[in-house]
Amino acid sequence: MFDPDYTSRLLQRAVDAFSRLPGIGPKSALRLALHLLRQDEEEAVNLAESIVELRMKVVYCSECKMISDAPLCSVCVQPKRDRSVVCVVENVQDVMSIENTGSYKGLYHVLGGIISPMDGVGPADLFIDALMERLQKGEIKEVILALSTTMEGETTCFYLYKKMAQLPVRITTIARGVGFGDKLEYTDQLTLGRSIENRQLFKPE
Amino acid sequence: MFDPDYTSRLLQRAVDAFSRLPGIGPKSALRLALHLLRQDEEEAVNLAESIVELRMKVVYCSECKMISDAPLCSVCVQPKRDRSVVCVVENVQDVMSIENTGSYKGLYHVLGGIISPMDGVGPADLFIDALMERLQKGEIKEVILALSTTMEGETTCFYLYKKMAQLPVRITTIARGVGFGDKLEYTDQLTLGRSIENRQLFKPE
Repeated sequence: MFDPDYTSRLLQRAVDAFSRLPGIGPKSALRLALHLLRQDEEEAVNLAESIVELRMKVVYCSECKMISDAPLCSVCVQPKRDRSVVCVVENVQDVMSIENTGSYKGLYHVLGGIISPMDGVGPADLFIDALMERLQKGEIKEVILALSTTMEGETTCFYLYKKMAQLPVRITTIARGVGFGDKLEYTDQLTLGRSIENRQLFKPE
Repeated sequence: MFDPDYTSRLLQRAVDAFSRLPGIGPKSALRLALHLLRQDEEEAVNLAESIVELRMKVVYCSECKMISDAPLCSVCVQPKRDRSVVCVVENVQDVMSIENTGSYKGLYHVLGGIISPMDGVGPADLFIDALMERLQKGEIKEVILALSTTMEGETTCFYLYKKMAQLPVRITTIARGVGFGDKLEYTDQLTLGRSIENRQLFKPE
């Protein structure tokens, strides 16, 4: 345990605050605090301001629950988006990752988590009712489930599938298989086995 | 390169600010920002305040150049400290590490770095003149050099040694050798060789 005798109460307070962030231990927190001391004042003020502004002003998109500066997020607001397809993801990072690929032109729906009884997260804790409301409007024709292939992800997919079964929507999931550039010998058995079962017609480009 | 299409300018600003901290890449920065969004407002405000307070109010001790809330740091201000011994260290963390051992009762002098021509750090960039001024007063009888055993550390030790050679002070360095609990077979040759050369009389406790 690293619990030094801080000579500065101000330093100690900053280190404590940094240490409460995920993945930052007391030693890293001290390094961050000492780094800020060596920077211009604007650098520290900018960091502090951006933290407060983020926490105070950011909202969730009223449609897809994505992080947004306005009531409708920058994806939902785009007129060119295909409003008949919704991709259901666990969190905000997943939206960014998919947007980053540039190959998806539909809308999103952020659940804000995943069903995990072990962590005490049930369906009511997620934006599932909001998804159902969107589907009731009848504009959405396809729901792509893009959740992790973990036990929790599968449980959530199954729960959503049951919920949506009566609705006139096509329910799909993203393709699972051996990643591009991956070597077969390093691919796990389950993925490799499924990728043979779910083989697709070869289309030379 | 992970450069997602942020749906929030506020989020992007906070991620950019976190990314400028050492050891925090864009993905970690995003995780930190999203973590703060899930916390109470006070949590974010406390972090921001502590950063600004730290940067604006912390000073360097007028004697030893340690980080301090007052003109004299909490070590220099202690009446029980042995004012005849000064331990010269590279940075603030080193003072904390030594204080943490509880086995040193003298004063410190923080150089604020180490002589490193490769990084453009010369003697004039360090608090060496301040050390000389303290020594001129004649109260200090021993200077302990507690710098790293790197090329830069050795260079700095040698430079300080030459500077202090004419002064009536005893110049010592911290003991180097095989660490307590270290196995000989995993100790590097240089350390092991030196630890035999510099062997000490065995004193059963």
